[in-house]
Amino acid sequence: MFEQLGLIGCGLMGGSFALALKRAGLVRRVVGYSKSPSTTARALQMGVIDVEAPSALLAVSGADLVLLAVPVAATETTLKAIRHLVNPDMLIMDVGSSKRDVVDAARRVLKLDIGVFVPCHPIAGREVSGVENADVNLYAGRQVILTPIDRTLAAKVDQATSLWRGLGCEVLTMSPEAHDAAFAAVSHLPHLLTFALMNSITGQADGKDYLSLAGSGFRDFSRIAASDPQMWRDVLIANREELGRQAELFQQALAELQQLIASGQADDLERLINRASHARANWRVSPGAR
Amino acid sequence: MFEQLGLIGCGLMGGSFALALKRAGLVRRVVGYSKSPSTTARALQMGVIDVEAPSALLAVSGADLVLLAVPVAATETTLKAIRHLVNPDMLIMDVGSSKRDVVDAARRVLKLDIGVFVPCHPIAGREVSGVENADVNLYAGRQVILTPIDRTLAAKVDQATSLWRGLGCEVLTMSPEAHDAAFAAVSHLPHLLTFALMNSITGQADGKDYLSLAGSGFRDFSRIAASDPQMWRDVLIANREELGRQAELFQQALAELQQLIASGQADDLERLINRASHARANWRVSPGAR
Repeated sequence: MFEQLGLIGCGLMGGSFALALKRAGLVRRVVGYSKSPSTTARALQMGVIDVEAPSALLAVSGADLVLLAVPVAATETTLKAIRHLVNPDMLIMDVGSSKRDVVDAARRVLKLDIGVFVPCHPIAGREVSGVENADVNLYAGRQVILTPIDRTLAAKVDQATSLWRGLGCEVLTMSPEAHDAAFAAVSHLPHLLTFALMNSITGQADGKDYLSLAGSGFRDFSRIAASDPQMWRDVLIANREELGRQAELFQQALAELQQLIASGQADDLERLINRASHARANWRVSPGAR
Repeated sequence: MFEQLGLIGCGLMGGSFALALKRAGLVRRVVGYSKSPSTTARALQMGVIDVEAPSALLAVSGADLVLLAVPVAATETTLKAIRHLVNPDMLIMDVGSSKRDVVDAARRVLKLDIGVFVPCHPIAGREVSGVENADVNLYAGRQVILTPIDRTLAAKVDQATSLWRGLGCEVLTMSPEAHDAAFAAVSHLPHLLTFALMNSITGQADGKDYLSLAGSGFRDFSRIAASDPQMWRDVLIANREELGRQAELFQQALAELQQLIASGQADDLERLINRASHARANWRVSPGAR
């Protein structure tokens, strides 16, 4: 049981976390701060937070648990704003979709205090954002990846693990590098591809007509294109190296298919599609990730 | 009410059509032919067809309605196999996802008889195939695109329209060219992209680990990658010109995003993601296409 959650960022991720923590009886009080005062007011009104803080620092004052739920590029500024109140009794976590940049920012700002910071990535999200979409069940049953570094305190990792398990999550641990490589492949690149496809279609004179004909395949394929632009702007830039590597491998696989299509090599094309189709048919979203 | 449906191809699309036609009371008898005898036997056993035909020609013998439900590249061979029994009292339709190649094949084979052929594309499908997945509701509530040409008889178009409406479909009419351009953008290219992504990931040493971490965004994005390889082999080759044009526009949109990511131009990147996100958030799958 935590005494006070200092919640920095009261959007979909942060708001859902506060609601779940309260329902699980794991926190006594949530003090929230958002860059936009109207978001904080809304969060208060919705019962997501109990007290509005006028600054990130004041949200952290008196907190034994701090959650950074801000776009990843804001991590460094946020840590700077609160560092004077960081203490060894505190657990600090984030929920960012990229981890190397977050860890680097924490190293730069927290220095010797970095042991209390446990970098987290809950594999949960929605294509809508904002506190008004906060959902007490957002994290339930999901995987959460922890990416501690050498200097992260083992006790803090244990504490974070118990906390996420208390919200019904499955907890995995890996290095920030392994995390970023994996999510470049299965999340960041797919988002990039759907952003590009939407822009490509809407940029055409007949794009609207085309979209009016699209069916359920397109609906599912493109769902993630509606994701939060600010969050994804940061993630794509933060993980650009791994993303670039994955994009290159993707382009090779695409070029191979295109070459067979252009030359009408039906048998070889079927073989490659078959490989993809089998891989996808045999894949199951992990019980944790749903 | 039709006397006899000659069903050529008893897979997911053909089998579902026969079941729906029967339930709607629109046909007295279904005579089915499949290249694979075990498929035809299974279709008979499931009640999808009433009589097994040993050849496409014999399935058509006595039929007043013929449905070609074969991979699009098999259209020409199939029409050649049945052309001696094509007569003016017959309505012939197909369910292919590309239309220019189908119309060209029909022109070459049917010649003066082409008036009875109404090219159709029901916007329905699943990521599983085979008669064992035939579903009486597959077409219900979906859009069906008819792409008649100058020489298609208006009476046959009317008959096809009534038939699909009788199965609960919304019927649209457009040229084969307009159809192929639109579906290259909203269906064929998305399929190609997901095939490439699956192959790109599974081709990597850590690909399996990456896939084990993928969440619900990846699940939805990649669902269409599990589609029938033979069907998609044909569609991608049949529509390669429009597909190539769409792939080029997509590559431009992707390169624009990648350039902003590489150079860390956050504001411009957010603007482009925002455009994509808004377009997707404001899009709704048409009631017909579900």
